[in-house]
Amino acid sequence: HDHASLIVYGPDKPGIVAAVTALITRNKGNIVSLDQYTDDPTGGAFFQRVVFHCRDLKVAMTEIENDLETTLGALGLTWKLTDQSIPKRMGILASTSDHCLLDLLWRHRRGELPVTIPMVISNHSNAADDVRSFGVPFFHVPSSGTDKSAAEAQIVKLLAENVDFIVLARYMQILSPDFLKNVGVPVINIHHSFLPAFIGAAPYKKAKARGVKLIGATSHYVTEELDEGPIIEQDVVRVTHAESAADLQRRGADVERAVLSRAVLWHAEDRVIRHQNQTIVF
Amino acid sequence: HDHASLIVYGPDKPGIVAAVTALITRNKGNIVSLDQYTDDPTGGAFFQRVVFHCRDLKVAMTEIENDLETTLGALGLTWKLTDQSIPKRMGILASTSDHCLLDLLWRHRRGELPVTIPMVISNHSNAADDVRSFGVPFFHVPSSGTDKSAAEAQIVKLLAENVDFIVLARYMQILSPDFLKNVGVPVINIHHSFLPAFIGAAPYKKAKARGVKLIGATSHYVTEELDEGPIIEQDVVRVTHAESAADLQRRGADVERAVLSRAVLWHAEDRVIRHQNQTIVF
Amino acid sequence: HDHASLIVYGPDKPGIVAAVTALITRNKGNIVSLDQYTDDPTGGAFFQRVVFHCRDLKVAMTEIENDLETTLGALGLTWKLTDQSIPKRMGILASTSDHCLLDLLWRHRRGELPVTIPMVISNHSNAADDVRSFGVPFFHVPSSGTDKSAAEAQIVKLLAENVDFIVLARYMQILSPDFLKNVGVPVINIHHSFLPAFIGAAPYKKAKARGVKLIGATSHYVTEELDEGPIIEQDVVRVTHAESAADLQRRGADVERAVLSRAVLWHAEDRVIRHQNQTIVF
Amino acid sequence: HDHASLIVYGPDKPGIVAAVTALITRNKGNIVSLDQYTDDPTGGAFFQRVVFHCRDLKVAMTEIENDLETTLGALGLTWKLTDQSIPKRMGILASTSDHCLLDLLWRHRRGELPVTIPMVISNHSNAADDVRSFGVPFFHVPSSGTDKSAAEAQIVKLLAENVDFIVLARYMQILSPDFLKNVGVPVINIHHSFLPAFIGAAPYKKAKARGVKLIGATSHYVTEELDEGPIIEQDVVRVTHAESAADLQRRGADVERAVLSRAVLWHAEDRVIRHQNQTIVF
Repeated sequence: HDHASLIVYGPDKPGIVAAVTALITRNKGNIVSLDQYTDDPTGGAFFQRVVFHCRDLKVAMTEIENDLETTLGALGLTWKLTDQSIPKRMGILASTSDHCLLDLLWRHRRGELPVTIPMVISNHSNAADDVRSFGVPFFHVPSSGTDKSAAEAQIVKLLAENVDFIVLARYMQILSPDFLKNVGVPVINIHHSFLPAFIGAAPYKKAKARGVKLIGATSHYVTEELDEGPIIEQDVVRVTHAESAADLQRRGADVERAVLSRAVLWHAEDRVIRHQNQTIVF
Repeated sequence: HDHASLIVYGPDKPGIVAAVTALITRNKGNIVSLDQYTDDPTGGAFFQRVVFHCRDLKVAMTEIENDLETTLGALGLTWKLTDQSIPKRMGILASTSDHCLLDLLWRHRRGELPVTIPMVISNHSNAADDVRSFGVPFFHVPSSGTDKSAAEAQIVKLLAENVDFIVLARYMQILSPDFLKNVGVPVINIHHSFLPAFIGAAPYKKAKARGVKLIGATSHYVTEELDEGPIIEQDVVRVTHAESAADLQRRGADVERAVLSRAVLWHAEDRVIRHQNQTIVF
Repeated sequence: HDHASLIVYGPDKPGIVAAVTALITRNKGNIVSLDQYTDDPTGGAFFQRVVFHCRDLKVAMTEIENDLETTLGALGLTWKLTDQSIPKRMGILASTSDHCLLDLLWRHRRGELPVTIPMVISNHSNAADDVRSFGVPFFHVPSSGTDKSAAEAQIVKLLAENVDFIVLARYMQILSPDFLKNVGVPVINIHHSFLPAFIGAAPYKKAKARGVKLIGATSHYVTEELDEGPIIEQDVVRVTHAESAADLQRRGADVERAVLSRAVLWHAEDRVIRHQNQTIVF
Repeated sequence: HDHASLIVYGPDKPGIVAAVTALITRNKGNIVSLDQYTDDPTGGAFFQRVVFHCRDLKVAMTEIENDLETTLGALGLTWKLTDQSIPKRMGILASTSDHCLLDLLWRHRRGELPVTIPMVISNHSNAADDVRSFGVPFFHVPSSGTDKSAAEAQIVKLLAENVDFIVLARYMQILSPDFLKNVGVPVINIHHSFLPAFIGAAPYKKAKARGVKLIGATSHYVTEELDEGPIIEQDVVRVTHAESAADLQRRGADVERAVLSRAVLWHAEDRVIRHQNQTIVF
């Protein structure tokens, strides 16, 4: 409690770190951790994350925000101050595969993910009992036929204003370009290949056909371009010629849930800054 | 000494393993190791590698080969018998970068690679002294201008009949479609990305632009299709946003030389079978 | 169906592979996969695993076993023939931590583990509902006080004759030297360090104190010597100075469940041969 | 050029980061990167590394040092300011094995290590030509017999005042307790196991006997306690039952040179802070 995280980014210039740390000190904050990165020391972009402790943070927030507005605004910087005691609300979309879904629910129960989970929505009903056994509401929104717009509208209606970010936990429906705009919050996906290899459908089958010796998974923010959004985390596992496409799928499932859980944790802890089509992960 | 490796492959059918092992036994061979793989138990392709010991192997070779011809020919199988005491002759093509080249020379000197190295050819002369200090002949074949055919002809002339396989140790010239045909031996390349991601030139720059969290290297047999040949080995290393394209290149160099050295070792030990556009690595 | 696995081991001598493969052929078996290893080509120990297909295997078993007895007995070899359509019965012992337990139950439900799970026994009751939601019986056997013999006797009574092997899924009670003898089946443990480092209690705390840069987990067969049994599988994960002992525990939990699930799978598929204090894993 | 690295550590208290960054700003420095760590937010130890750019650094050094003395001394902190344009002088001790030695020399030639190498000393002469081909002086100091004191005195005489740190690149002689005191600079060793497993001699043989599935290497600062000094870096590689102790040694050599080169780089860049028997690596 009483911990805040502050994200600052914008055009680099001398003295930003000193300005930010002085600001925290004069607002009686004590820096717990500080990460900083400049993509080009001569005139590039600047990124910083500071976690600080501040007694009676809730009371102090407004004053700190005013100070940030004045001090960092003058430097042309963007900032975001977050009270770490307020967990982000995470909505999950899933389909029949449950390995990513169950892993998130279980990590949450263990206290590994600083989020609340207001709901799980799936276009299949198989996971309903499992989800509810974790005390999480489950909504079944079928998605058959070619026109998905009604289903998507229903999903948006359930999620809008109720969640701070959305996780596609192997959700197998392609969302329309409008979905992102309509839900208005970041969406994190897990793709079952080491992007940019094997973009699109059936990556394990493509991996088997190409004869790769490593398969992987990639968690990224969803953008309008399918499988092209900023990558948050990736990992791989070694495979051999002896493994079938089905084996690759089974082996890959372990990588998928591990990669997704790390990406979700980092997003939930405000460790990820999007910059162009890349991420800074502190 | 007196060890042979036998590669057998072709259409699968019951009894192949028994036929091969019986053949080795009746020729007084003792099996040291045996690997076997079938890509589809119902009518797929069969692959086998056996290493066996046989007293006075050099004398026995002809008789064993006759038996193989009779026995395996009848089963429609292809085979290749190799006296392991005869090292393969490895020619190396290189350019200015020396990390893969020196690593192969060091490993060879340490006795890690069962090959001889009749020559190193480079389109640059910077590595000449280093190469010759290992007792290996060095030939400088410059490759300037747009017409590379004269340089390529000179390379083919140097290599033809003198080597059993060729390693492109970060050789930065694109070889013509005829090169493979004219040298008549397998060519192993190291590509500085985890193929099929970042095919073509400047993969580290592309990797930086895409914001991947892992970079890799791929060793593959060269075919007429650039970067599309059968993959022998791959590996990756974790990187962060803080690393520049130049950092990725430096970090990747370590992966490249490690991956290439494993691929070369396995090829030299007759562990790799090409099948369609894939490899079986025993 | 109709697949058998055959394990053969004993003193090496020429012709064993041929003898075994001929035996399978004359019993109308078709070899699907074959692995073989000799720890010393000159007079060492020989190990082999063959999976073969045989129409009407259940009928043929007796005849094949007789042939094995005659043929391999004469060679001084030990063998074990298993009908792969009969899943092994796996009993699980657990305590409060549920990461290894749930991972095994999830994988089993997904069809990844060729076993049945007759029961889970725990000295705590917290996982009862979760376990039963998988359709698996749960028994709570408390283990308080200094004399654990009554609790242990109860556990043995529940397990004996009902399971083919036992998994200690982070079971935090030390079993008596007699336990192994009384249950009469192999017991697989997961230790939360890369053995032989940090033997005994509180390995993550010891790892933090020593300042290691990697932490790991080890799955091994239980013997009378605590943490000294034959290792089946190990893995590690990279950590930094910034991670507390509690962080190491959380990070390590992911390695533990991954390592244990691989060891269990390999044991269930008869891929593991114990030899002295080591394992051959095919 | 004109880049300095500043290491600060000592008892944690609020405002240190702000004090340091303000100091850099008022001395006209521009922060390029900043790393910070507190081992216990409530009254633990504080560690910081800042790299900053400062025009005419050489001229400004004295003034900055005076400011540091005043400002940080008052806070009870220890600090160390380094002009990054002045490379550290690295002495290397080696024996017959050349894989670590050559890797360091070659990385230095490629410009990967910001050091100079005044000399290589070996108790064997086999590497003399190789070392000198890199333009580095080579001294042969034989070390036979039971009394090593004369050899050690000769080594100290060669190194003292001539190097800023020493690397034991698989140097196979045990140095006396006085050696560290007499050379007066940090000594970095590479141990061929993932410490604390397999302390002492012949770790690969011990690893084979224990049947581990991973082997590793550890680079650490040398202290009076053999193999017990603060660990800088570790890594592992997967092995199987089929690999002999000699295979492990060959496979391990690749891990050794990789781990040592990373530890040396980080030390050379002033990224490593020793704290009790651990390291903070920024």
